[in-house]
Amino acid sequence: MNPYLGRPLRYGMVGGGPGAFIGAVHRKAAALDGEFRLIAGAFASTAERSQAQGRELGLAADRVYGSWQEMVKGEAALPSDQRIEAVSIVTPNHLHHPVASAFLDIGVHVICDKPMTTTLDDAEDLCRRVTSSGCVFALTHNYTGYPLVKEARSWVKSGRLGTLRKVVAEYPQGWLSTLLEATGQKQAEWRTDPSKAGVSSALGDIGSHAENLVRYVTGLETESLFADLSSLVPGREMEDDANLLLRFVGGARGLLYASQVSVGEENGLRLRVYGTDGGLDWSQERPNELWFLSPDGPRERWTRGSGYLSEEAQHACRLPPGHPEGFFEAFANVYRGAGRAIGAQQTGKDLSLEDGDFPNVQEGARGVHFVHQAVLSSRTESWVAMDYDPPS
Amino acid sequence: MNPYLGRPLRYGMVGGGPGAFIGAVHRKAAALDGEFRLIAGAFASTAERSQAQGRELGLAADRVYGSWQEMVKGEAALPSDQRIEAVSIVTPNHLHHPVASAFLDIGVHVICDKPMTTTLDDAEDLCRRVTSSGCVFALTHNYTGYPLVKEARSWVKSGRLGTLRKVVAEYPQGWLSTLLEATGQKQAEWRTDPSKAGVSSALGDIGSHAENLVRYVTGLETESLFADLSSLVPGREMEDDANLLLRFVGGARGLLYASQVSVGEENGLRLRVYGTDGGLDWSQERPNELWFLSPDGPRERWTRGSGYLSEEAQHACRLPPGHPEGFFEAFANVYRGAGRAIGAQQTGKDLSLEDGDFPNVQEGARGVHFVHQAVLSSRTESWVAMDYDPPS
Amino acid sequence: MNPYLGRPLRYGMVGGGPGAFIGAVHRKAAALDGEFRLIAGAFASTAERSQAQGRELGLAADRVYGSWQEMVKGEAALPSDQRIEAVSIVTPNHLHHPVASAFLDIGVHVICDKPMTTTLDDAEDLCRRVTSSGCVFALTHNYTGYPLVKEARSWVKSGRLGTLRKVVAEYPQGWLSTLLEATGQKQAEWRTDPSKAGVSSALGDIGSHAENLVRYVTGLETESLFADLSSLVPGREMEDDANLLLRFVGGARGLLYASQVSVGEENGLRLRVYGTDGGLDWSQERPNELWFLSPDGPRERWTRGSGYLSEEAQHACRLPPGHPEGFFEAFANVYRGAGRAIGAQQTGKDLSLEDGDFPNVQEGARGVHFVHQAVLSSRTESWVAMDYDPPS
Amino acid sequence: MNPYLGRPLRYGMVGGGPGAFIGAVHRKAAALDGEFRLIAGAFASTAERSQAQGRELGLAADRVYGSWQEMVKGEAALPSDQRIEAVSIVTPNHLHHPVASAFLDIGVHVICDKPMTTTLDDAEDLCRRVTSSGCVFALTHNYTGYPLVKEARSWVKSGRLGTLRKVVAEYPQGWLSTLLEATGQKQAEWRTDPSKAGVSSALGDIGSHAENLVRYVTGLETESLFADLSSLVPGREMEDDANLLLRFVGGARGLLYASQVSVGEENGLRLRVYGTDGGLDWSQERPNELWFLSPDGPRERWTRGSGYLSEEAQHACRLPPGHPEGFFEAFANVYRGAGRAIGAQQTGKDLSLEDGDFPNVQEGARGVHFVHQAVLSSRTESWVAMDYDPPS
Repeated sequence: MNPYLGRPLRYGMVGGGPGAFIGAVHRKAAALDGEFRLIAGAFASTAERSQAQGRELGLAADRVYGSWQEMVKGEAALPSDQRIEAVSIVTPNHLHHPVASAFLDIGVHVICDKPMTTTLDDAEDLCRRVTSSGCVFALTHNYTGYPLVKEARSWVKSGRLGTLRKVVAEYPQGWLSTLLEATGQKQAEWRTDPSKAGVSSALGDIGSHAENLVRYVTGLETESLFADLSSLVPGREMEDDANLLLRFVGGARGLLYASQVSVGEENGLRLRVYGTDGGLDWSQERPNELWFLSPDGPRERWTRGSGYLSEEAQHACRLPPGHPEGFFEAFANVYRGAGRAIGAQQTGKDLSLEDGDFPNVQEGARGVHFVHQAVLSSRTESWVAMDYDPPS
Repeated sequence: MNPYLGRPLRYGMVGGGPGAFIGAVHRKAAALDGEFRLIAGAFASTAERSQAQGRELGLAADRVYGSWQEMVKGEAALPSDQRIEAVSIVTPNHLHHPVASAFLDIGVHVICDKPMTTTLDDAEDLCRRVTSSGCVFALTHNYTGYPLVKEARSWVKSGRLGTLRKVVAEYPQGWLSTLLEATGQKQAEWRTDPSKAGVSSALGDIGSHAENLVRYVTGLETESLFADLSSLVPGREMEDDANLLLRFVGGARGLLYASQVSVGEENGLRLRVYGTDGGLDWSQERPNELWFLSPDGPRERWTRGSGYLSEEAQHACRLPPGHPEGFFEAFANVYRGAGRAIGAQQTGKDLSLEDGDFPNVQEGARGVHFVHQAVLSSRTESWVAMDYDPPS
Repeated sequence: MNPYLGRPLRYGMVGGGPGAFIGAVHRKAAALDGEFRLIAGAFASTAERSQAQGRELGLAADRVYGSWQEMVKGEAALPSDQRIEAVSIVTPNHLHHPVASAFLDIGVHVICDKPMTTTLDDAEDLCRRVTSSGCVFALTHNYTGYPLVKEARSWVKSGRLGTLRKVVAEYPQGWLSTLLEATGQKQAEWRTDPSKAGVSSALGDIGSHAENLVRYVTGLETESLFADLSSLVPGREMEDDANLLLRFVGGARGLLYASQVSVGEENGLRLRVYGTDGGLDWSQERPNELWFLSPDGPRERWTRGSGYLSEEAQHACRLPPGHPEGFFEAFANVYRGAGRAIGAQQTGKDLSLEDGDFPNVQEGARGVHFVHQAVLSSRTESWVAMDYDPPS
Repeated sequence: MNPYLGRPLRYGMVGGGPGAFIGAVHRKAAALDGEFRLIAGAFASTAERSQAQGRELGLAADRVYGSWQEMVKGEAALPSDQRIEAVSIVTPNHLHHPVASAFLDIGVHVICDKPMTTTLDDAEDLCRRVTSSGCVFALTHNYTGYPLVKEARSWVKSGRLGTLRKVVAEYPQGWLSTLLEATGQKQAEWRTDPSKAGVSSALGDIGSHAENLVRYVTGLETESLFADLSSLVPGREMEDDANLLLRFVGGARGLLYASQVSVGEENGLRLRVYGTDGGLDWSQERPNELWFLSPDGPRERWTRGSGYLSEEAQHACRLPPGHPEGFFEAFANVYRGAGRAIGAQQTGKDLSLEDGDFPNVQEGARGVHFVHQAVLSSRTESWVAMDYDPPS
């Protein structure tokens, strides 16, 4: 149960109907710790498909809606002790803003998939609505939920790496190496359609994860970036390969790339950071190990679950070392944090630092800004400035 | 929800109170897919600690019991549509038999941790009770739940490896390299105490997993074994290191070892199998990859979630390749299978092959037999025969 | 022995005196196969240190010279059957051109370390001198000597990867993370001194290897590049970190980086190439394995020495699989090729394709051009064109 | 040059003719450092084939012999300053003893391949002849020549691992998974023929390396062993798979296996050692890294060439970290040591500890004893005692 509430948090979902991938991920992540209870949803764009999904999930039929608009209306009409307390938004990108706005406006907390919005205006609008509503807003940059990503961050914070000099973030995937969208594959279709994905495909979908990871771990501010975005599969409108150079405030340098045409790659997010006193290396596909690169000693393989980890990292572990955790558990950490933040807010209790460690609406706005500046840089073939402060 | 029942299965738990490790694992594994609902428990040996655990789990107080005996009585007294349908037994080894027996006797299905019992008599008694009760009995040899372990098995079955010749199963851990039990650590205490663990420590605790994995993947029958069991930490009564040679029916040869004093090792279960036409290599700490060793081509790294996997393996996956799954998900596969077998049994529906793929009570008896024969071999310093058929 | 000559080739060396690193590498590479015999040298900038080195190598005192100028004169004066047939040049960069020119002018074949020269004019001058002299010129881009690099190249050539789309070349090192040159360390000193290293440090020293490897394996022509060169260690004049974006003729995209401040990295040259039909991944620190990334099957680990490799790769192996070869053996392949080319030229025999596979003077000029264009791009913050044909 | 002699050592070779594998390895290992010069040989069993090999190596025809007997006679007749100083014996096993004896008897130092002899009597006879001749005898257990194997040994010696408890030595190969000897393949033929290989095939050929490595690194004395030797390929007379349990003096336990039918494995020698204070893990196929397993900290990856290694290990390195060394370089370390020991002996100089670190004739006798006791144990299905002291 949610430890602040003394019971599971009631939540609903928009999106995640039959055939969707990410909706099921969110539901399992929420279920893992027993701190959430799914009670409502607008899972699909027809009432029929939405109800089918609701039945499979064991939901009461009157809490399953044919559209998110009906869901907002229906939930708003319920007494507060029955209404959902939070909504998970797992639709294509272009719906994030209207759905999140509508639920924030009726005082429902939001857990939203990334990238947050398709325009910067929308992103900033959400920032302001979150503030004015007093609601919690969590963005599922799930990779920050990995315990060893939190450990990596703690190394930077504690000065273990010294002054940072170099960052290499890479995110190769291969699944869009063919014109998959032409075959009717849903995941590919909306991600490569500008009316649903926004100004960017590869960069919005996975590059934004890489950028968020860099910022989360290093705390560095990007001063300027130079991008080269390309569409490498014939017949594709949007970019499927994005290569960026980064300059950070303070002088550090970086590379970041996201590719969906790196054939044979699965989900190769990797981050390397080098400082004056040490380096780190973490790969999403081997998330239970984190490498410390010593200037003059052997490389060290730190493992998830170990007693020598920082408190933040240990807090995010559910199993001892050698018992692999993975994608769901990291995702569940974002959920657990968000749910507890909501619980703390509702009960007026103090939120622990560890529970409050999840990406928020400002992070989301920064991500949208990043994507837009990268598109601008690629178009103008020039370095573009990156200083930016989202509304708070 | 359980697809056979159209709703989650109601279950209770014996053991898994405050400070226990494996109880929480079982609960999260059960929760992941939303096919189970925990509604009762006797979590600890005092009513107070049991209730504390029950409250943390959000259970109704009248379904939380001060002992497993009370729980049997209490549940038996409930109408069948409220009573638990299954019980998870996560106590120290010596309680598995009495608790399982009592629940089987009132028609409650059983999910039991391993090793199944501390004596072979008890194991065979359970076999008979399962048959006579008509109940489902699942043993949580969770490592067989990994998708790529199922893939490995499919390779052997399909003949991809040819005739098997050599098996190497290893299971090094380091956590008992010191006399941890003398510090009051609970996990160490009962595992090294013959009155709770039975005739064996390392072999029962982890060697039995390795042996079960060998049998699950290879289908080989062991003809005879030779064992050398040792207690290497001064002051420890039971063996913490076990090294075995195996001879299989048909002529294949094997090694199997389990060690709790391999300092620095975490949970290093690994299986290698070599046949006339190919070999395989799988490590629990990197469960998302399985290696095919070709006689004359490059080694192949098969990955969980891939479209080229067998149906059995794909059925056990929840995420696409590159999105790591781990220990919980494998455990959840045992639970999901057991729950569905119970659902099928209760509704009279046909159980799918994939859903029925979990270790049963006979597997448990074979494991207990294996441990006892190894102890015998080590004591007599001789090869001992292994042909054995548990009661069905 | 050199199979074209029926005896070892006589060679001399310029540079490689006491304390030098790369000179000993060249000598061992030449010695490995018994196809070379070292008989002369100007090893250091004083006669005394040169003689000391000569004695340690067992050379006749009258073939050890106090300067390369004396060596040119001395060797030119000898009858042709005693004179060195080839010279190895292992000095700091700024001496490559004068030394190579002088030996070419007296008809001595040249094996020269990289980068070939410090200016493009010098590089082109060498191209012309090689042509007019009719001598063999080999540049020790030794990484192309690895058998599995040759295998990688054969994959591209044979169309196994389809049309190439993406190239990622990285070369992180950490040894210059401190101002090592200020401590008097010789290797660091000349590499960071523009009067000896030329216009570039990191890029010339290791980036040129990465660029050469990309061209060797992919055969792609670079259309344009964008570079960001930085000096990240305070007090250092030249760049120690270089990050580049590449656009290839035909539309493929790439990243290339070279860094000497990636603390904790040793010699991390790695190349990844992705095409429409497959990808490849090779790392210098694990040179005995090469990965094939399949669009729809398991990743394959090809190993050096295997019978399934291409003829070119097998020709470059000296040991069966599982018996690791390394840096010396790859280097020796460049030497063996160069020596055999010289033997073929001297005897008028046909050179086999495999023996002729080593980097030549035009490759050297391309490397120098690359470095200069990268410096230009970084200075002008713009894409620069890369079409270039060295004199032949 | 040999630093004790001030010139290269003159040596000859018995065996290693056309088509042989290991002879070329010995020659390249000897050539690498320029401390040996090959001047004589009886390379094959016919004068014609021996001369052919001699010509390819550039030897004078009058120093190439048609049999080893002629070579002994011929070399003995030469003045001592022309005669070979050492002989390399690279024949099938059964010839090691007669050839080594004959050369020792004329005062020629011996470098001999392993296993040393086919009978224990012969092994002990060689021990005595070495002593009486005053000659140096080196056995090419080349795996002890790897720098990180020396580092591993230094850890044990210095107490870094504490008291040793567990040893796991494995040596899987797959090349004899078919009845290769029936195809006329020379390497397979003699190794599986008892008249040439002796009492054992897999164990003598590769198990003896594993056993020697265990003793070299751990310094442990084996108290007793239990073996299960099998011939798994139909039609093969000798064992191709050997699985052993070990008990060491002091209580440590071990497993050792050697297999030639582990299909798909290349040359998988690996050693793991666990003590009270730490463990180590080294694999021959990745020889440039050695793992330290900490009881309570992260695993450490020590790399060859690093400044933090012990003096013994650094002495055995020729290249900095990240520049892979391999099989030849390790082999060359045995040669370099043997050559220097001979040089020191001839000049009466003190041999450095590092130069004297190579396997000697007593190690060879221990290896032969080990193989014979394992055969005995397997035949009698019982533990056999292992205390043994070869003649010195």
